[in-house]
Amino acid sequence: MATEGVEAPELRNKQVILKRYVSGFPSKDDFELKTSAIKSKVPEGSNEVLLQNLYLSVDPYMRLRMRKIVDGGDYFASFVPGSVISGGGVARVLDSGDPNFKKGDLVRGMTRWEEYTLITAPETLFKIEHTDVPLSYNTGILSAVGLTAYIGLFEICSPKKGEYIFVSAACGAVGHLVGQFAKLAGCYVVGSAGSKEKVDLLKNKFGFDEAFNYKEEEDVDAALKRYFPEGIDIYFENVGGKMLDAVLLNMRFHGRISVCGMISQYNTDRPEGPNNLMPLVYKRIRMEGFMVSDYYKIYPKYFDWVLPYIREGKIAYMEDIAEGLESCPHALVGLFSGRNIGKQVIRVAQG
Amino acid sequence: MATEGVEAPELRNKQVILKRYVSGFPSKDDFELKTSAIKSKVPEGSNEVLLQNLYLSVDPYMRLRMRKIVDGGDYFASFVPGSVISGGGVARVLDSGDPNFKKGDLVRGMTRWEEYTLITAPETLFKIEHTDVPLSYNTGILSAVGLTAYIGLFEICSPKKGEYIFVSAACGAVGHLVGQFAKLAGCYVVGSAGSKEKVDLLKNKFGFDEAFNYKEEEDVDAALKRYFPEGIDIYFENVGGKMLDAVLLNMRFHGRISVCGMISQYNTDRPEGPNNLMPLVYKRIRMEGFMVSDYYKIYPKYFDWVLPYIREGKIAYMEDIAEGLESCPHALVGLFSGRNIGKQVIRVAQG
Repeated sequence: MATEGVEAPELRNKQVILKRYVSGFPSKDDFELKTSAIKSKVPEGSNEVLLQNLYLSVDPYMRLRMRKIVDGGDYFASFVPGSVISGGGVARVLDSGDPNFKKGDLVRGMTRWEEYTLITAPETLFKIEHTDVPLSYNTGILSAVGLTAYIGLFEICSPKKGEYIFVSAACGAVGHLVGQFAKLAGCYVVGSAGSKEKVDLLKNKFGFDEAFNYKEEEDVDAALKRYFPEGIDIYFENVGGKMLDAVLLNMRFHGRISVCGMISQYNTDRPEGPNNLMPLVYKRIRMEGFMVSDYYKIYPKYFDWVLPYIREGKIAYMEDIAEGLESCPHALVGLFSGRNIGKQVIRVAQG
Repeated sequence: MATEGVEAPELRNKQVILKRYVSGFPSKDDFELKTSAIKSKVPEGSNEVLLQNLYLSVDPYMRLRMRKIVDGGDYFASFVPGSVISGGGVARVLDSGDPNFKKGDLVRGMTRWEEYTLITAPETLFKIEHTDVPLSYNTGILSAVGLTAYIGLFEICSPKKGEYIFVSAACGAVGHLVGQFAKLAGCYVVGSAGSKEKVDLLKNKFGFDEAFNYKEEEDVDAALKRYFPEGIDIYFENVGGKMLDAVLLNMRFHGRISVCGMISQYNTDRPEGPNNLMPLVYKRIRMEGFMVSDYYKIYPKYFDWVLPYIREGKIAYMEDIAEGLESCPHALVGLFSGRNIGKQVIRVAQG
């Protein structure tokens, strides 16, 4: 509740700023840390909500917002150089002019890379209702990350029991969930990742049927033929480029490709597509991109589905948690060298 | 009916043979004309059907079968060098061991580039029932060509009234039908083609709202922005490569791309995909390949829909008819220099 007539004291607010548009591989130098001040109360009469950020989500798509986006308008906006980075997170409400939120509420949604954030569009926040699972899960398996895996697999690809599924970037935040969700749906699942440690995790912890290190395969087409002698029914695309070419050669009739993202292309100004899309025709393949934000109305259904599995320990959800707002830039850069395993999260303050 | 006990006389049978697998641009030298002999009756006791070919269909996909296909198995087989080319056509039954066909019947289906063809799998033939329209139409608008336009537009893309549709290779056999079908569905339709004559036909004869000559556009992206200031809802893909890149930049949210073929890629051993598939994600685009052979059960529905339009003159169906079996190679090569307008057909004998 906004306090009337009294000037609110200010809080010191550490922030991570994007210094400039980035081309090529991002580095810590593309960011700077700054400390500014923020009022400890929302403006009188407003419906704004003041958050203390607890966990911040670090995701590959954020790299795309660090470049000047020229190919499209408002569907996916660039970050503004000189401004605080925005991204998903979990926070505690410190003050609220919106009757739907009160001081002390835990929320998730789009916040910013800073200690305290004034949210001017509180309708984009979701109150956290499932407090028997770790709070940080609300930046991942219980947020857009988990919903992305669910939508991309179930809504876009409609897997049937016994189908063959390939997941690239399989040890990433979305990938390791897709593989486990597909196993729960009775599919045969193979993942690719970029290190022996990740391959071991995929097979031994996340329950993939098989996994391989794409960096050790001279010929990914041959690797896919080895792991999928019958071909691939469903490909969950996180990578793009040459990987997609190899996958297209190994798809089965009426295969489905859910295009979640293409991390191999995010650090280049000259993206490389697949060379040969003709298998789409011969093999009657459907390839479909999606943005999870179109599916937020599915959250209740998704939570009803996933929470029992989490509570029963049937999904091994892995987080890579770094401490302190200062570690945000290093963590984001690390996504592109494959440093993280599972969901990259930053703990900004204790929950 | 097979005649018992009497040796059937032989017919002289001119044939077009594929000499070798072809890489690069095809030429007339890749084919040779041969004359052999064929029995004028089907073998006694067989269910085979002997055809006299009347019209042969010349289609871009045939180029794909002229190369050694290595990326897939049996879904799309190479022609066999040294053998007669196979393709769609219209024919008269000369003799039949199959009770479903009798001498004098007119049929369409897969036949071969020769004067007479012995069909060993007569279940692949369709009897021609609509004899009030020109017989040659059964190689095009009343065959897989027309069904391709219908399926690719209606089944794959579900056009809604008022949507914006772009058709590449719009003066081709499939393209000029897609545009007219889309107009009948109440859409706004723009086509691209490779000459002024074709652009004029698209606008003045086929009823496209707009058309442009892609060879005169230095920047196809800019051209598309000019013709589609609101963006493209549906793209009927006949071309591939750079055109697809430009289209992807101009698609609207939830756009649909029906991938019928990619003629720009058929004469190269190093196909070029689009460079940037990320708009699939931002714009939630569905891109789907299809093979018309999966949809033959739709023929009755399609004929019920299209025949009234043909009879009422509401569809301007254009054929490019060359005379004589000898003109087959020249006609096929011409598809790739854009020589034909509308459906390329060869008249082998009078119907």
